[in-house]
Amino acid sequence: MHKVLDRINTLKDLKDLSRNELVQLCEEIRQQMLLRLSVTGGHVGSNLAIIETTVALHFIFDSPVDKIIFDVSHQCYTHKLLTGRKAAYTDPARFFSVSGFTDPAESEHDIFSIGHTSTAISLACGLAKGRDVKGETYNVIALVGDGALSGGEAFEGLNNAAALGSNIILIINDNNMSIAENHGGLYQNLRLLRETDGKAECNLFRALGFDYSFVRDGNNFNEIVDALEKFKDTNHPVVIHMCTVKGKGYRFAETDKENWHYMEPFDIATGKLQHESISVETYETLTAAYLANKMGTDPSIIAITAGTPKVLGFEKDLREQFPKQFVDVGIAEGHAVAMISGIAKAGGKPVFGVSSSFLQRTYDQLSSDLALNHSSAVILVFFAGIGWGSQTHMGVFDVSFAANIPNIIYLAPTCKEEYFSMLEWGLNQMEHPVIIRVPGVEAVSRDVALLSEYSYPAKYEMVEHGTTVAILALGSFFGLGERVRGQLSAEHGIHATLINPRYASALDQTMLNALPEYGHQLIVTLEDGVMDGGFGEKVARFYGTSYVKVLNFGAKKEFVNHVTAEEQYFRYHLTPEQIVSDILKEMKK
Amino acid sequence: MHKVLDRINTLKDLKDLSRNELVQLCEEIRQQMLLRLSVTGGHVGSNLAIIETTVALHFIFDSPVDKIIFDVSHQCYTHKLLTGRKAAYTDPARFFSVSGFTDPAESEHDIFSIGHTSTAISLACGLAKGRDVKGETYNVIALVGDGALSGGEAFEGLNNAAALGSNIILIINDNNMSIAENHGGLYQNLRLLRETDGKAECNLFRALGFDYSFVRDGNNFNEIVDALEKFKDTNHPVVIHMCTVKGKGYRFAETDKENWHYMEPFDIATGKLQHESISVETYETLTAAYLANKMGTDPSIIAITAGTPKVLGFEKDLREQFPKQFVDVGIAEGHAVAMISGIAKAGGKPVFGVSSSFLQRTYDQLSSDLALNHSSAVILVFFAGIGWGSQTHMGVFDVSFAANIPNIIYLAPTCKEEYFSMLEWGLNQMEHPVIIRVPGVEAVSRDVALLSEYSYPAKYEMVEHGTTVAILALGSFFGLGERVRGQLSAEHGIHATLINPRYASALDQTMLNALPEYGHQLIVTLEDGVMDGGFGEKVARFYGTSYVKVLNFGAKKEFVNHVTAEEQYFRYHLTPEQIVSDILKEMKK
Repeated sequence: MHKVLDRINTLKDLKDLSRNELVQLCEEIRQQMLLRLSVTGGHVGSNLAIIETTVALHFIFDSPVDKIIFDVSHQCYTHKLLTGRKAAYTDPARFFSVSGFTDPAESEHDIFSIGHTSTAISLACGLAKGRDVKGETYNVIALVGDGALSGGEAFEGLNNAAALGSNIILIINDNNMSIAENHGGLYQNLRLLRETDGKAECNLFRALGFDYSFVRDGNNFNEIVDALEKFKDTNHPVVIHMCTVKGKGYRFAETDKENWHYMEPFDIATGKLQHESISVETYETLTAAYLANKMGTDPSIIAITAGTPKVLGFEKDLREQFPKQFVDVGIAEGHAVAMISGIAKAGGKPVFGVSSSFLQRTYDQLSSDLALNHSSAVILVFFAGIGWGSQTHMGVFDVSFAANIPNIIYLAPTCKEEYFSMLEWGLNQMEHPVIIRVPGVEAVSRDVALLSEYSYPAKYEMVEHGTTVAILALGSFFGLGERVRGQLSAEHGIHATLINPRYASALDQTMLNALPEYGHQLIVTLEDGVMDGGFGEKVARFYGTSYVKVLNFGAKKEFVNHVTAEEQYFRYHLTPEQIVSDILKEMKK
Repeated sequence: MHKVLDRINTLKDLKDLSRNELVQLCEEIRQQMLLRLSVTGGHVGSNLAIIETTVALHFIFDSPVDKIIFDVSHQCYTHKLLTGRKAAYTDPARFFSVSGFTDPAESEHDIFSIGHTSTAISLACGLAKGRDVKGETYNVIALVGDGALSGGEAFEGLNNAAALGSNIILIINDNNMSIAENHGGLYQNLRLLRETDGKAECNLFRALGFDYSFVRDGNNFNEIVDALEKFKDTNHPVVIHMCTVKGKGYRFAETDKENWHYMEPFDIATGKLQHESISVETYETLTAAYLANKMGTDPSIIAITAGTPKVLGFEKDLREQFPKQFVDVGIAEGHAVAMISGIAKAGGKPVFGVSSSFLQRTYDQLSSDLALNHSSAVILVFFAGIGWGSQTHMGVFDVSFAANIPNIIYLAPTCKEEYFSMLEWGLNQMEHPVIIRVPGVEAVSRDVALLSEYSYPAKYEMVEHGTTVAILALGSFFGLGERVRGQLSAEHGIHATLINPRYASALDQTMLNALPEYGHQLIVTLEDGVMDGGFGEKVARFYGTSYVKVLNFGAKKEFVNHVTAEEQYFRYHLTPEQIVSDILKEMKK
């Protein structure tokens, strides 16, 4: 039972509350949010930090006429609770009814679907410009923080917002943390401003041309309201620098900010995970162990992350063990790719670990900074494939955009032995940018034929010699290929050929030319990503003028939201049974 | 005859000169550079501005041990002259022997091949980091300017360079101009620093953590040398803020900085072009006229550029005519794409004009900010196709990366009537992000079947009904398709079907399904871009399990340098004769 929260169902209700009731509401939301997070998991730290700000925003401004944009949007929980989706936070039966990011499909109060950092200021500039030319007068507010200022798009936005000459209100949520620590000179200035209560002459935001206001305690409701009231309906660009405490009000989250950035379901009293994490060997931990071992003997090996060190398996202890050889550039993936090109040119051996969804922030750097310059850097792509993340964080596009860039060798290992063989080669060669698609989370092992080098021309691995049908099962879908081959053989007496293509970016023309000669009539490609621009289409083009048929399997070109991997496999005809059935259909034609 | 220049052949020669001789050398280079530029054309303004800085850099530092990186690198002419390539600037017979950008293939003094802006600081960070872990001690210098600071990658670089903790020297060439005017809050701070001789407390670079030095006259050789000497072998990150005059020493270029940023061959005495520009109707001028006309009656239409207003045909007079509806965000393409998403969400009608090569800087924004949000913005892609720019500015990748993003409708008009029909529809619809690939420079006209809407499902235009062979000739290659069809018919009696696909991003499945039914046995695709990830591969996949053959034509996945469009057509089998020959070969198989 919450005295105030129980009475609040619409934004109108909120506006009828007294200041004291609003303060109490914040505390009730905090307790309820903690309860809900303990069941669902989620972005604990940033959401606990931003409760007062969110309540104040909705108290002062009139959403959806006034537009509030949440950068990254993983800190939108209180916003959702206040804008028609309370049950998702108070009714256990509906805890999973909303996503963890803003989504216009859920509510008119969610202006954009957002999951990547550093975009809100630019989006807000657009809203403000559109508003101005239409002669409208609402407020445009962007809430930015949690390390997102280090991304280039945020700076491009700041630079242009400052010059906009009309209403735009940027709230910089300064919790002195991104996912891990903050990095870069920018944060020096934020610290100086915090230490001087915003009074330092040297002020990045004023330097750019913003009006500037400092909120010392961004978890003090009244202090926030005062700042917002002052700038409501402003006619010029404003930055409100708001200091919040990540994890506010929950001691475990306040103490260990990094681990509580995102947490699986936990016990509130002890802060321990509800479910013991199953101890499996993951590519993350294996990668970290491999790199740490190498780095110990070769000081030229440098591991790089853009704000997500854990993706590479680099927990705090490892980071401290290699202060010079582990670099966190902050959320700035583009910079990371340009930087590894520079490191390689200086004779270093850089390894950049990044999730598939964030690799797409680096297309130009992959092409211009890295590939055009033949820089021998290695990029490890994690969370690639169907079912990783929802529409904002999908992992299915990386082959489609990165493997079509000249000079890049895009490798798709099928197991841990092959993965480390490729990584070892990538580190020791000096000619190619190499991207390696990490094949899932849990490491798998198989009796694989390794190469001593993975340069071009591509050499595929012929795993099983068969007839009639040849299955090219790329990377993380190799296991699927094995199952398809097994079913074809066991249930239909078709002994298919099974091939591990190894390369997402190139064809083994010798092997592909030989397949028809050895009596194959149907070539099947399996890839764990979109087919448009992907691996299978290259095979289809190769055989375009041949009599053999090519059947491509992979994901459809679409954004999918709240669809499990299993549902997607079924939708795309990617279960072994569906694939076998489709193959049989083709053979009967 | 140049008294000093004639004696200079190596960097060693340079270091033996007295200060007075060095000053004279700068002046001799300026005269010689002007002479050479009048013959070859090139980036006049920025190269005249940076002569003293470049001579001073090579006088003080020891290239190639010390690494000097030129951002964008279009201001590298004096650098090339001083580093073994003097003849390319002094011997008319060799004027065209070097490119206008740094290129490691030309010289060990060119560290990177660079053509896109805002990358040098990040590349320099990488060099510095690689140097440090290897225990080496050379200087890393990045020369950045001409508007390049507004790009997000530059800021990501600044933010990280400041935190590097070792030698990195950034020279900010502040000529108060990018290609057109500078835009954004950043330039307010540069102005403040200029007006206070670098003494203002509010200093962006100091705010980020750099040591900072101000050079009031960046065309005064001795002043520059003093600043460089002070920081040579520094052990920490330094910014040298150098004020130069764009076009220095040539009155026409100093006066009209925008037009003299890049100039075709000209007469030195009069500043007039050597060759009267042939007056043809271009898509640029037609686009500007169309938009200006629309903007006059609809204030919600907003034209946007990222630092290259002329690409959209917006010369200064038009920009001044529409101060609210024409937005130059500076060199910040990512911001531009996010901004148009915001404008569309606010009910505006944004049109972003960009060259193909620079569109690749926006992959993540195209996907996350625009397509995921179904924002109804229009992007016009200029300079797309084979033969635009050299390896740093190629226009062949845009379909491969952008047309494979979900929700984006990527249209490829064949003529001006179709182009404006698509643009008109794009502006008036409210559901889709629409990209239109401008089909070349010179406008062509044809009797085309227009649609009232270009949404999905895709509907291709059946231009000529024929038999046996069907040619799908996309966008700017439609004319090529007509010629191939003509030759097949006139010389070989084959009356091929000719199709204008209209869409680069989707298939007209109805029409494609009908082609085999109507007796077509060979489907030919022609596209003015790389085949990997392109349009033709989608067609090949579609017909993968059909008995019809598919033959794809397009560019190979590679970076090409100093290769004319004609040579590339020949290399890729894209002349009508080669295509006809390849088709005949297939038909005989």
